[in-house]
Amino acid sequence: MQELFSDRISDVPPSFIREILKVTQDPTIISFAGGLPSKELFPLEALKAATQKVFETGGTEVLQYSTTEGYLPLREYIARRYEEKMGLKVDPKNILITNGSQQGLDLLGKTLLNDGDDVILEAPGYLGAIQALSIYRPSFHPVEMDDAGMLIAPLTETLAQFGQTKLMYTVPNFQNPSGVSYSNERRRQVVEAVRNSRTLLIEDDPYGDIRFEGERSASFASMLPERTILLGSFSKTVVPSFRLGWIVAPDALLEKLIVAKQASDLHTNYFSQRVLYQYLCDNDLDEHIDRIIDVYGRQRQAMLEAIDREFPAGIHHTRPDGGMFLWATLPEGFIANDLLQLAIKDKVVFVPGDPFYVDGKAHNSLRLSFTTVDEATINTGIQRLGRAMRELLAG
Amino acid sequence: MQELFSDRISDVPPSFIREILKVTQDPTIISFAGGLPSKELFPLEALKAATQKVFETGGTEVLQYSTTEGYLPLREYIARRYEEKMGLKVDPKNILITNGSQQGLDLLGKTLLNDGDDVILEAPGYLGAIQALSIYRPSFHPVEMDDAGMLIAPLTETLAQFGQTKLMYTVPNFQNPSGVSYSNERRRQVVEAVRNSRTLLIEDDPYGDIRFEGERSASFASMLPERTILLGSFSKTVVPSFRLGWIVAPDALLEKLIVAKQASDLHTNYFSQRVLYQYLCDNDLDEHIDRIIDVYGRQRQAMLEAIDREFPAGIHHTRPDGGMFLWATLPEGFIANDLLQLAIKDKVVFVPGDPFYVDGKAHNSLRLSFTTVDEATINTGIQRLGRAMRELLAG
Repeated sequence: MQELFSDRISDVPPSFIREILKVTQDPTIISFAGGLPSKELFPLEALKAATQKVFETGGTEVLQYSTTEGYLPLREYIARRYEEKMGLKVDPKNILITNGSQQGLDLLGKTLLNDGDDVILEAPGYLGAIQALSIYRPSFHPVEMDDAGMLIAPLTETLAQFGQTKLMYTVPNFQNPSGVSYSNERRRQVVEAVRNSRTLLIEDDPYGDIRFEGERSASFASMLPERTILLGSFSKTVVPSFRLGWIVAPDALLEKLIVAKQASDLHTNYFSQRVLYQYLCDNDLDEHIDRIIDVYGRQRQAMLEAIDREFPAGIHHTRPDGGMFLWATLPEGFIANDLLQLAIKDKVVFVPGDPFYVDGKAHNSLRLSFTTVDEATINTGIQRLGRAMRELLAG
Repeated sequence: MQELFSDRISDVPPSFIREILKVTQDPTIISFAGGLPSKELFPLEALKAATQKVFETGGTEVLQYSTTEGYLPLREYIARRYEEKMGLKVDPKNILITNGSQQGLDLLGKTLLNDGDDVILEAPGYLGAIQALSIYRPSFHPVEMDDAGMLIAPLTETLAQFGQTKLMYTVPNFQNPSGVSYSNERRRQVVEAVRNSRTLLIEDDPYGDIRFEGERSASFASMLPERTILLGSFSKTVVPSFRLGWIVAPDALLEKLIVAKQASDLHTNYFSQRVLYQYLCDNDLDEHIDRIIDVYGRQRQAMLEAIDREFPAGIHHTRPDGGMFLWATLPEGFIANDLLQLAIKDKVVFVPGDPFYVDGKAHNSLRLSFTTVDEATINTGIQRLGRAMRELLAG
């Protein structure tokens, strides 16, 4: 059967993370490896009430096939929220509801990428985007990040070298995996670098609302509206299992995305769109997000303090202002995978940086999630990890 | 922006059906054009009860991210049902839950097709399959159907001519659009024709349970297990808006399909999987399907009787034993689209055959759906359509 498989499917990197998650089935292991939001924060009762209301007021229509674009009142809600929160004018007709923003990436690949097309990625970059876009066999050009976003010199160089670059993918707020947010200055520089190319900017923003401190920076969409595609999601703020995300795209592209969406799965689960919309009508989303911010913020703080206490000298790490992750970097010459082997023995796990790069190399960086572990567990886990680091560094 | 679009997205045929459905917004128009199940038959109260139970017993876990493969008890249910209804042994680990069987087609295209790969299709064939597979730019080889399935002589010839044919797509029970079911004899002949090739057979069976008369024929999967991929769906029997379908595939292929599914949207809506499974535990699916069979069967009968009464001589039509559609063919030289223009004036619509073919030609055939129109409306609608046909034939 192997000889029947498409070339593209063999290009997709295997999900190393799935393997790590298997290890964490052991309940005595402390895991900073997960990428999941904390289920304790899901609004169970409110979603239950919304569901009952949808059954009672919607009738059998909520069980029928629906439109490919998605439920219009939900798209209108999303547009209103862009205006309120970011001063961004978005027409609901430019919004397509997707099965999580992961599907947005698949549809963008489908609609835009021919084999070998040039795509600029952050390094490290979001694994889900690497996987989704790999299917369409582009040439990836990773551009290194520092604590303020993509580095401008290599970005400019890459854009000059690959003048026909079609897409550039970014997570400008509390990036997965690094937790880095682009500074205002860096955003302006990125936009200047891209402005004179034909490159479309994908601005993936699943974490933007989960900000512990500081102010929201201007969105790429507000600075380069004609060439920015926005991806959003309710998975990190309300409910992941419903698989509800969206794409905001210019008219001509949205038309093609609808064709791709229809070919891919006709439309997104309509019942869940109705339930989520009902939830959003009957509840204060910001109040709910404040609860998430409170918990994740305290856990991030606990992790930062434990790191300052427990990690040996020479380990660099980010100090994210929001989101779900932080990123640590071992001194040069050390390999995060080696650290993982020592850490597993000491019953703590994380995701080594390798799958977030497209170069296939062994990296010295690692991702730590602070969402699903309470403060006491964070202290114990970081203590164990610090011990494993000292063991590694001591050789 | 046009110059940025991928080659593949321009290959997807536009959905003519969407355009027709717009016409049918006018409530005085009788529509046989829809492809929807009747919403009056959806088990609203039972799904409402199942949903409450899932919230009460499942807790926040039902709102969390879940596995790419899908909810194991649901996959076990599907496997048991194959055994009970069709004597088919399927291991739950060979089942992947998808967003409707439309996504199954997308994942199969993703996993199997390189540009230009040969794919055999029924002519007429299912529009959703044409759209989904078009994305992966195969060479389609349509094989004509008669009232007992694909014709064997052209199938054998096509297989001989395109010896490397990768896929053959069939809907063997109550096909969409024609309503045709393969006879037992024809199934044996198809399997014999394919057996000595490397071709994988996609057996898409969304309607198989909705049988008004006769006995279920042997599945291709039972006759050629090592090379048949089964697609199934709950959209026609329980609830379309949940978008729940599945693929059954051999081990090596399923592994690749999981990679493709993860890249496409991580996993199918987990909450809806839990609700559907709860519904299946607490209700008798066959009893529910019997109600669908009763209603659709009576409407099919009304349509057949009205056709015998109202259609002019020289119009061939199928007599489906199940499903949702029948297929009428005008005498040669006439064009179904011309009939549609006359029919719209008389306030009745249907889908002309053209989108179900990949040859881009104007065809003389049309699809009539009998699911969402009651018997009295069927009589009026078929009377109007007969009148339009006589007008067309009179020139």
